[in-house]
Amino acid sequence: MKLLNTQSADFQSALQALLAFETAQDPKIDQIVADICADVQKRGDAAVIEYSNRFDGTSAQSMADLTLTQADLQAAFERLPANVQTALQQSAARVESYHQRQKMQSWHYTDEDGTLLGQQISALDRVGIYVPGGKAAYPSSVIMNAMPAHVAGVPEIIMVVPTPGGERNDIVLAAAFVAGVTRVFTIGGAQAVAALAYGTETVPQVDKITGPGNAFVAAAKRRVFGVVGIDMVAGPSEILVIADGSTPAEWVAMDLFSQAEHDEIAQAILIATSQQYLDDVQAAMDKLIQEMPRRAIIEASLGNRGAMILAKDLDEACEIANYIAPEHLELSVENAQEWAPKIRHAGAIFMGKYTSESLGDYCAGPNHVLPTSRTARFSSPLGTYDFQKRSSLIQVSEAGAQSLGKIASTLAHGEMLTAHARAAEFRLKD
Amino acid sequence: MKLLNTQSADFQSALQALLAFETAQDPKIDQIVADICADVQKRGDAAVIEYSNRFDGTSAQSMADLTLTQADLQAAFERLPANVQTALQQSAARVESYHQRQKMQSWHYTDEDGTLLGQQISALDRVGIYVPGGKAAYPSSVIMNAMPAHVAGVPEIIMVVPTPGGERNDIVLAAAFVAGVTRVFTIGGAQAVAALAYGTETVPQVDKITGPGNAFVAAAKRRVFGVVGIDMVAGPSEILVIADGSTPAEWVAMDLFSQAEHDEIAQAILIATSQQYLDDVQAAMDKLIQEMPRRAIIEASLGNRGAMILAKDLDEACEIANYIAPEHLELSVENAQEWAPKIRHAGAIFMGKYTSESLGDYCAGPNHVLPTSRTARFSSPLGTYDFQKRSSLIQVSEAGAQSLGKIASTLAHGEMLTAHARAAEFRLKD
Repeated sequence: MKLLNTQSADFQSALQALLAFETAQDPKIDQIVADICADVQKRGDAAVIEYSNRFDGTSAQSMADLTLTQADLQAAFERLPANVQTALQQSAARVESYHQRQKMQSWHYTDEDGTLLGQQISALDRVGIYVPGGKAAYPSSVIMNAMPAHVAGVPEIIMVVPTPGGERNDIVLAAAFVAGVTRVFTIGGAQAVAALAYGTETVPQVDKITGPGNAFVAAAKRRVFGVVGIDMVAGPSEILVIADGSTPAEWVAMDLFSQAEHDEIAQAILIATSQQYLDDVQAAMDKLIQEMPRRAIIEASLGNRGAMILAKDLDEACEIANYIAPEHLELSVENAQEWAPKIRHAGAIFMGKYTSESLGDYCAGPNHVLPTSRTARFSSPLGTYDFQKRSSLIQVSEAGAQSLGKIASTLAHGEMLTAHARAAEFRLKD
Repeated sequence: MKLLNTQSADFQSALQALLAFETAQDPKIDQIVADICADVQKRGDAAVIEYSNRFDGTSAQSMADLTLTQADLQAAFERLPANVQTALQQSAARVESYHQRQKMQSWHYTDEDGTLLGQQISALDRVGIYVPGGKAAYPSSVIMNAMPAHVAGVPEIIMVVPTPGGERNDIVLAAAFVAGVTRVFTIGGAQAVAALAYGTETVPQVDKITGPGNAFVAAAKRRVFGVVGIDMVAGPSEILVIADGSTPAEWVAMDLFSQAEHDEIAQAILIATSQQYLDDVQAAMDKLIQEMPRRAIIEASLGNRGAMILAKDLDEACEIANYIAPEHLELSVENAQEWAPKIRHAGAIFMGKYTSESLGDYCAGPNHVLPTSRTARFSSPLGTYDFQKRSSLIQVSEAGAQSLGKIASTLAHGEMLTAHARAAEFRLKD
């Protein structure tokens, strides 16, 4: 891992180089995706079936071969060992409980003159959850995407998940069962995104699509954005650990590994206030790496994009964290709750030595879909609020129309919008 | 205006045709914008000055010639007539008061085992407000974009507004003064968006850019999305009026005009439950159109995209409204508050006969930046919440680590993520 020291003259430029990540879109992928989307929009189910058979190696004759009902999901759940069933249910229950707290409520108030102002909250009518197939099929992601929609009160949650070679993943389908998914289509790629965005004879048009996917899925989501809502297009996952030395070095080492094992381009950074602690974590990593099944991925990730940073104190460490705006931030320090308010930009803040990021990934309750690549500067974790929206409420009283009408008339004439002014003036008594 | 009847066999297809709007992006504009963005990213101020002089006909020698301070904004305010000053201040005060109610607060709770979960709210550090120059320069838009950021507690609000031919609009600058804008650069177009997104020697990099603009501005916002946050890319403005006949026909006629006068592609639709009332509104329009300075625009807009719909009752009218998901919805009916809960999809709901849309545009309090083109199905008005974001808070207690650790371990092994499992298991006591 790279070693950076905040006292070096080139620290800021070294930090910038560390965080740099090329996210340019590939015009070739964009063109392929544009063609697939146009074709699905035009030919509907027939196109979806063709692309699925071609890209996923399935041999579907009709959409019925690519559709799973709630009974199918329940059957998948029932095939699982009891301990996995229980773990899924406990995870779903905790995620549900936390996301209930995020639910927005309608409100209104009344001015002295009787004018009512407020905000009415409604759930989306129908949403689509994209779940990757194959190796990167994570049941926890199903829970994290579907449960907030379920809590928001979305009546219909449609999941799409490709089944390369026809292979279905029981844990993924069981997660859909416990998280309140309504229906599943075993389709993926740009064709699944297009089917959800435009609707086909069988796949109903949704209002928003969330969930991770490969470059084709990401390009398709960008393309249909506006026709439907989308969540963020996610970059590689990252963790920043700030440690004051009070957490066992082995624990922190494993927390860094748990980020690195996702992907060769995942990023794990440790900031500590003593060189001794950095050395201890390095020694722990050297030992623990031996037992890691995903050793090659971890070594690639830490070697390419990992770093240890020596900071002069925790205040400086928090400033660096605000610059990095990490997806995951572990405040692995004593009195973590005193330090958390100094953090302005982070997707999730894991406080204290017992809070490994992995507890948050699976079951603590908050969502694990978090803003990556410094976007925590301006965006938030996926939440219940992403499946609700607001309508402004305005009921102006007769008295209110007198005072507001004069203001509106003055400003509308200032903007040369005569009809705006006249509409307000009509409501004036004299 | 077109006449539609919900009892006709072809009503649904006629409604779809009415709402259809081609929003395809222009590849030529995209290429020009890509070049400008790359150039501004590379050459900074020098590029911004060159493009401004070329496109806006200014003759700036340095960025100092394109920069306004708070003192300049105050001076613009002081040059205005007293009634306009007062109207701006009253509008700003009402918008501020409403947006205070939208401010999100941090929260947390503690499980029985001592585990803390919550959500920490922070304001964005710095935002950019794009304000169009020339004819479409609306001081009300300045208030509606800047005030929510101000209420959210954003420390720095940077406004950009082009000054074609060097001409500055005092009302626009005065609106910036009352709405809490920190600094103004008199630049516009893709070059202004790029300067805000990437930063230059003079223009500070922002975290989010909001505000309307022409096709070049929209393309530039799409391009920098991800580097910074953006608000929605807005389509043409729309109003849907549902009338039960209790509002004077002239008032409704003028409300339709006030939408139509914005733009030839604006859309105004009236749904009523009696043919007589539709006829009355048509007669009122025929009379009132004579006195409208923007008559040509109104006639084009109503002729091309306007419609009157005869519905069998208000329930059916509300169903149509949910399909249209209009930016502005006037429930110009008796007991409007009883009908509002039937509306699931609308940017803003204006209730009762005294609530002309224009009162909401200028001064009722709620924001006038609203989701267009059916996007109210999944998105919300611009608000204070758009300038705040959330970080999840998790502090697992030692006891919590025991129960959560077992769940996480089971699920992580199910996903073949050994380091995730081991990080949780390290925190188990036995």
